[in-house]
Amino acid sequence: MTTHEASPRPESPRPESPRARKRADAERNIEAILDAARIALSRDPDASIGEIAKAAGVGRVTLYGHFPTRAELVTAVVQRALAEAEQTVDRIDLTGDPRDALHRLIAGSWSLTADAGALLAAAEQALPAEDVRAAHDGLLARATALIERGRAEGTFRTDLSSSWLASVLHSLVHCAATEVAAGRLASEDAGGNIAATALSSFTPPG
Amino acid sequence: MTTHEASPRPESPRPESPRARKRADAERNIEAILDAARIALSRDPDASIGEIAKAAGVGRVTLYGHFPTRAELVTAVVQRALAEAEQTVDRIDLTGDPRDALHRLIAGSWSLTADAGALLAAAEQALPAEDVRAAHDGLLARATALIERGRAEGTFRTDLSSSWLASVLHSLVHCAATEVAAGRLASEDAGGNIAATALSSFTPPG
Repeated sequence: MTTHEASPRPESPRPESPRARKRADAERNIEAILDAARIALSRDPDASIGEIAKAAGVGRVTLYGHFPTRAELVTAVVQRALAEAEQTVDRIDLTGDPRDALHRLIAGSWSLTADAGALLAAAEQALPAEDVRAAHDGLLARATALIERGRAEGTFRTDLSSSWLASVLHSLVHCAATEVAAGRLASEDAGGNIAATALSSFTPPG
Repeated sequence: MTTHEASPRPESPRPESPRARKRADAERNIEAILDAARIALSRDPDASIGEIAKAAGVGRVTLYGHFPTRAELVTAVVQRALAEAEQTVDRIDLTGDPRDALHRLIAGSWSLTADAGALLAAAEQALPAEDVRAAHDGLLARATALIERGRAEGTFRTDLSSSWLASVLHSLVHCAATEVAAGRLASEDAGGNIAATALSSFTPPG
């Protein structure tokens, strides 16, 4: 989280140059804006730039200086959230039986999606579907690797492409998020629904 | 398509009142705007209000008089397209074996989705996911009725709710549209992929 690098000469502290101070201020402002935007958008996907600037303790002009459009700010927030999510997903054990591994991947993905909550809705309103998908590339790559291993071992179907099956998995998580947000599905049932549907979809037919 | 009703007294043509003429002009303008918007948005989901007004042969002020925001115009275009789609879907035979009926429903839904093409992308950029889903209510109701019949007959699974299975079907069509738009799936394979995935998802497990 810290933006200050260790000084190479700690024994002779020099006053920072105006340029270095300006850069450090900008970095602190960007961090504050991204943190405030994440909290505000997670509460309300329609949170305004004015609210976010106020929560970050910066002026609107400063905010627009770093993020010229609302879409750029939302993109930055979503990409940071996804980078953190990817680290979490990287720690999920995807070895062993592919069906069990798929269960673990879904449980982890759903828990991250549920935490992201309204932030996901903000992303979908602000960004084209293809950009939201692109931001998920790392997660999709892990899902695809698992699907391909499952196909090689005969556990998952091979009559549909790996990329289709990975997209289906992504769609099912998205579907559950929409259903939970609309009050048609209890959040605690979502992981089970996604897993039951994905496993049936992935099983070789017949 | 005509907005002129047959006159009750064709033998004595009277000049229209200024008010009636104004209303008829407004109706013609709305029709022209909706037609032009549908064509423009189907070509390019980012088509601007200026382009649409020009194609419709009206000024921007006239367009904004009828549709105060771009989102309202897109909503109106999508709702009209969906009303037409619903009439087409209403003609699909959903009797007989539920699996065969599901195949026919998917083939019809996919063909309509492929025709809507970029219009769907425009809708997804302009409208929250929940509004897009609300606009599909009629289609979802037909799918749900078929799913419930299939469950009653033992063909489809009952361990997941009908509303979840209907949402999964909707998500799979949406998934295929995204994959085709991104060039990862051939349009002619989309119906088969949706059907193979939906039927596996809907089949009772075990």
